[in-house]
Amino acid sequence: MKDPIAMTDSKPHPSANVVVRHVDRTPVELVDQLAPIGTATVHEAIGRRGFLGPHLRPIQQGVRIAGNAVTALCHPGDNLMIHAAVELCQEGDLLVVANTAPSNHGMFGDLLAGSLMARGVRGLVIDAGVRDTSDLRRMGFPVWSQYVSCQGTVKASPGSVNVPVMLGQQVVRPGDVVCCDDDGVVIVARDEAAWALEQSNNRLAKEEATRRRLEAGELGLDMYGLRAKLEELGVVWVDHL
Amino acid sequence: MKDPIAMTDSKPHPSANVVVRHVDRTPVELVDQLAPIGTATVHEAIGRRGFLGPHLRPIQQGVRIAGNAVTALCHPGDNLMIHAAVELCQEGDLLVVANTAPSNHGMFGDLLAGSLMARGVRGLVIDAGVRDTSDLRRMGFPVWSQYVSCQGTVKASPGSVNVPVMLGQQVVRPGDVVCCDDDGVVIVARDEAAWALEQSNNRLAKEEATRRRLEAGELGLDMYGLRAKLEELGVVWVDHL
Amino acid sequence: MKDPIAMTDSKPHPSANVVVRHVDRTPVELVDQLAPIGTATVHEAIGRRGFLGPHLRPIQQGVRIAGNAVTALCHPGDNLMIHAAVELCQEGDLLVVANTAPSNHGMFGDLLAGSLMARGVRGLVIDAGVRDTSDLRRMGFPVWSQYVSCQGTVKASPGSVNVPVMLGQQVVRPGDVVCCDDDGVVIVARDEAAWALEQSNNRLAKEEATRRRLEAGELGLDMYGLRAKLEELGVVWVDHL
Amino acid sequence: MKDPIAMTDSKPHPSANVVVRHVDRTPVELVDQLAPIGTATVHEAIGRRGFLGPHLRPIQQGVRIAGNAVTALCHPGDNLMIHAAVELCQEGDLLVVANTAPSNHGMFGDLLAGSLMARGVRGLVIDAGVRDTSDLRRMGFPVWSQYVSCQGTVKASPGSVNVPVMLGQQVVRPGDVVCCDDDGVVIVARDEAAWALEQSNNRLAKEEATRRRLEAGELGLDMYGLRAKLEELGVVWVDHL
Amino acid sequence: MKDPIAMTDSKPHPSANVVVRHVDRTPVELVDQLAPIGTATVHEAIGRRGFLGPHLRPIQQGVRIAGNAVTALCHPGDNLMIHAAVELCQEGDLLVVANTAPSNHGMFGDLLAGSLMARGVRGLVIDAGVRDTSDLRRMGFPVWSQYVSCQGTVKASPGSVNVPVMLGQQVVRPGDVVCCDDDGVVIVARDEAAWALEQSNNRLAKEEATRRRLEAGELGLDMYGLRAKLEELGVVWVDHL
Amino acid sequence: MKDPIAMTDSKPHPSANVVVRHVDRTPVELVDQLAPIGTATVHEAIGRRGFLGPHLRPIQQGVRIAGNAVTALCHPGDNLMIHAAVELCQEGDLLVVANTAPSNHGMFGDLLAGSLMARGVRGLVIDAGVRDTSDLRRMGFPVWSQYVSCQGTVKASPGSVNVPVMLGQQVVRPGDVVCCDDDGVVIVARDEAAWALEQSNNRLAKEEATRRRLEAGELGLDMYGLRAKLEELGVVWVDHL
Repeated sequence: MKDPIAMTDSKPHPSANVVVRHVDRTPVELVDQLAPIGTATVHEAIGRRGFLGPHLRPIQQGVRIAGNAVTALCHPGDNLMIHAAVELCQEGDLLVVANTAPSNHGMFGDLLAGSLMARGVRGLVIDAGVRDTSDLRRMGFPVWSQYVSCQGTVKASPGSVNVPVMLGQQVVRPGDVVCCDDDGVVIVARDEAAWALEQSNNRLAKEEATRRRLEAGELGLDMYGLRAKLEELGVVWVDHL
Repeated sequence: MKDPIAMTDSKPHPSANVVVRHVDRTPVELVDQLAPIGTATVHEAIGRRGFLGPHLRPIQQGVRIAGNAVTALCHPGDNLMIHAAVELCQEGDLLVVANTAPSNHGMFGDLLAGSLMARGVRGLVIDAGVRDTSDLRRMGFPVWSQYVSCQGTVKASPGSVNVPVMLGQQVVRPGDVVCCDDDGVVIVARDEAAWALEQSNNRLAKEEATRRRLEAGELGLDMYGLRAKLEELGVVWVDHL
Repeated sequence: MKDPIAMTDSKPHPSANVVVRHVDRTPVELVDQLAPIGTATVHEAIGRRGFLGPHLRPIQQGVRIAGNAVTALCHPGDNLMIHAAVELCQEGDLLVVANTAPSNHGMFGDLLAGSLMARGVRGLVIDAGVRDTSDLRRMGFPVWSQYVSCQGTVKASPGSVNVPVMLGQQVVRPGDVVCCDDDGVVIVARDEAAWALEQSNNRLAKEEATRRRLEAGELGLDMYGLRAKLEELGVVWVDHL
Repeated sequence: MKDPIAMTDSKPHPSANVVVRHVDRTPVELVDQLAPIGTATVHEAIGRRGFLGPHLRPIQQGVRIAGNAVTALCHPGDNLMIHAAVELCQEGDLLVVANTAPSNHGMFGDLLAGSLMARGVRGLVIDAGVRDTSDLRRMGFPVWSQYVSCQGTVKASPGSVNVPVMLGQQVVRPGDVVCCDDDGVVIVARDEAAWALEQSNNRLAKEEATRRRLEAGELGLDMYGLRAKLEELGVVWVDHL
Repeated sequence: MKDPIAMTDSKPHPSANVVVRHVDRTPVELVDQLAPIGTATVHEAIGRRGFLGPHLRPIQQGVRIAGNAVTALCHPGDNLMIHAAVELCQEGDLLVVANTAPSNHGMFGDLLAGSLMARGVRGLVIDAGVRDTSDLRRMGFPVWSQYVSCQGTVKASPGSVNVPVMLGQQVVRPGDVVCCDDDGVVIVARDEAAWALEQSNNRLAKEEATRRRLEAGELGLDMYGLRAKLEELGVVWVDHL
Repeated sequence: MKDPIAMTDSKPHPSANVVVRHVDRTPVELVDQLAPIGTATVHEAIGRRGFLGPHLRPIQQGVRIAGNAVTALCHPGDNLMIHAAVELCQEGDLLVVANTAPSNHGMFGDLLAGSLMARGVRGLVIDAGVRDTSDLRRMGFPVWSQYVSCQGTVKASPGSVNVPVMLGQQVVRPGDVVCCDDDGVVIVARDEAAWALEQSNNRLAKEEATRRRLEAGELGLDMYGLRAKLEELGVVWVDHL
């Protein structure tokens, strides 16, 4: 078993398992304005960053939400730290669960969902499996996960809560904005949230104008000036092959 | 071509291809009581066993059934033995098809489904692909498979019917109870079925009580006595990171 | 940067990037007759060929269409050539996008869909990711893709339009018929389209007769003469194992 | 935490975690005669069965061994039960480690290898990762594993020793013969070992004769009578395509 | 079973299974000059085309060969058509085996290798598994395959010989040049072989000059004029982050 | 094309593409002392952290090195930023290349290796493919990569140099220590390097003592006090199953 190792008296060592009580959250009004924009637009607006990857899929269809990240870092096949995370969740949060190594266990089900809903948690993102999916859909608790799996877990190994975690080559920090919809999950860093909202709204406006022109038959090739670029890249137009 | 090899006169060798006519089934009233409980609860109740794995997914949503396993063991890309299995199926059965090596072929479609429905078969579990999925959904014939695939098969290679087969590192024996829902497929051994039902019902009752307490805001951390355990494991609570 | 290389003056070298303006399309009345038959039947009718593989899945359910292939060959993470393909699309076409190496980017979204719908394009098949999937479903623009992914693309690298491309070990040529439904995507070569339609209709008729007999309880084992074959292959019937 | 559940007083329930002290081993002289034959020949000789799959690869090249299986069933990321298995190993054994769910952890390294070598254990087969691979090669302790991985494990979760386990859709029972070489791992059931040796030797002899004829230029097509079969299957010979 | 279908009297239908006797081969002196160049250089020289993909790995190290493609198209788990291909092989050929669907079977071993070596065949490329790998290395018969696998095959299903086949989204035609080394397999079309050799030799000369300058410390950034390009792409140089 | 976006005048925005000239490196004497310890020991000594994952494999055997990380972040299929990174490398560095999305391209070969060797770079870690592997082995330039692949790249898309990058759910910062051997790659953060060396040396000493006891036949079960733990976890010892 790993002892917590402190390099100084005041600060736990990076390798120690900690539960961090306080999270600097993104203001909920920012979160709520980012929610309806959609992950594809937000991801693009902030410089094509923040996407957790196509392996995290929703168990429901047509839900678009955002929340403040509360994070849990678990040992594969062990949901002990999810239980430790619950009491640190509050209204407007979204639980993000990562594992120290790949796991296809069903680490989360209807009981934990009921517990989180009682605290106003908006949903779950997990890089492992969930179960009780028909119940979760019925309860209206949205989930983005890598697997649907019955495979149960133990509650035996330590981990951490509210530390930075990684899912799909993306760091998620407590208090970051977690944006979720049918296209997946995108993370907006807390200190970029206001800027991200502004960028996203700019993009929405621009997209709306572009959309109208494209639907009217105008070509992206012309609108974006790509025709010259193609020629410069040596692409040749021919009538027949 | 492989000759059937008999070590004794009376019993085919394990390497022989056999079609076994008689299956000792689980009493259908047990099966029918296990069906509505749900795979996650049954899996947990019998000691976290029996799950076939997250690679087997339903082609429909919201169906929860159970049936007596009739098994077929096929060569990849060859559904000859599914045809051999049909006449051995009866009311209340559920066909379980395994392959001797990975296969992504569409080994099953609407014609075979019609044939099985005529015999009262409740559904199909297969570690390969199925096709005609929109027809299967329209017909109300539920399927759990690894792939949806048009890729057709031949009918050329021998295999077995009603022998123990393996799907996803789990043995399925003819007459075992196959429980299926949106979370996947769980196998209950025939001689554990009565015990499994009792365990599952106990768990359902316990879960119901737990659910009420969690939804009322009580913490699993306290209910399950995990707070002390976390401390014992060296987890440290800190206010900030 | 790769220069276009011509072996002769009149014809671009196979390694050159070209945009081919003219496509010899399959007559749309043939395409429209193939559409409702379904991919499983067409695939089987033409000799179990043409399936693009189970990795290409629909983002919607219950849509069955066919169209004339317009093809685009892209660099991973770069949708420049999709823009180049749009103006070459016409009523009744279906855009098929391949990549020179695996890509899980969201190379296509609602803006490009609006652009294609303005030209009468019926749908998209792509061996990478798409985004804006809830919008695409709302717009009624059907897509078959390998991933759903927010991950955006650049518009920087040359490729080709209306050259033969490969998806899932299947060649797709411009003007081939692309048949799509819940079971996936099947390609019918342009010069086989009339024959394929005839074969498919023959098979439909045959399947209908077979279906009635199977649903009446007759066995495929008997109808297809498989019982003798099984014996010839050395399969042994036993009462018990 | 899972309590051990007993259905009767005398026998632990299948869901209980047990360490079984006694293994009925295959006579070591049988094991030693099977070892040099090679997995491909043994697998073929016993009816194309017993192969654990291509995901289990040797970390060394050119080693061919066999041993009596001692089995350990672990929780992913937890090697507690490997430690429990060591004292039950004896001269001529080969340790087989399975997991209750997929694991890519480095569950085994040079220290455990030294411990096993002190007891005469011949090697390791594991469906997870190993580490210290350069040391293991230097020590001459052969390993077949799914991964090479530094990722360390805890020692926190219960499992079993010397129960039947599954690796790659194949059951391995304690005392079965584990045959390993560059082609992978093949299991021979204890009660088939004598027969398997006889079959394998027959096949070796037959292969030797076949080899000489093939190397002399004779064709398998003629030797195996496949030319007629191809014609019967409708294959057509043509001069040009 | 599939009947061979002919659209005309003189030519088999594309869906028919055929064995084509005659192959228009690439002149062996061209093949032999391409062999020592190496796949990476050839692939680059012909416009970054022809690579079969990283899933095909050599079972040996340090072998660099090329040969004329003789192709076989098999049903997964069935090596009947490899046997049919042997007699059509001649001095300087290289056998390329593809499957109609994914297969991890060990479809080829030392006996077939002996048979091919007797005919002067230089090696094997296969998108499935091989076995007897230590024997194949000892015999000096080089192989590039997707798997090493004991899993045996049947000889039951028809396929084709010397038709165009696809491995890893690349078409291989009989008589194409198959270039193989530690980096994988690259195909050079027969009618591009002379041009490919010239391009490759040009590239070799150019690479040699570049190599000397780079090893002398000159920067690719300067040699290729990439510094300006980076600036044009908006990349910013900063001293610290 | 993405414009560099600055939130303030002095600091580029996180979404901007930057080349950072200055790296705070770990003192090379620390790096050189960590190198021979081995990744498994270092990973374990620092709290089971830092492993990049089993997908990154060496192209050679028996090499154990460490170096200061210089990082490059590339677009898939585009090695432009590797060229930009070369001039920022110095004696004792190790180049770490990440991609913004999965890539199986051969992004690096012998020419770039010669360029890096001229600057004293010790090796390469890349989460994509490499080519010219036989040349790289001959040159003595060690590489850990996800693929071996001929598939060439363009030089068209911007990225960054010496920013934090992620490989396999692990952050690598410029100046971190990159430890590489046959077991894979482990990252030691620069500000933990001295502590990591101390922990690793402690662990080496402890392992040496443990090794001697285990090789003398003592049991880990006893040395680590695991017997009591197993009982506490409910594991039952039985003589027979």
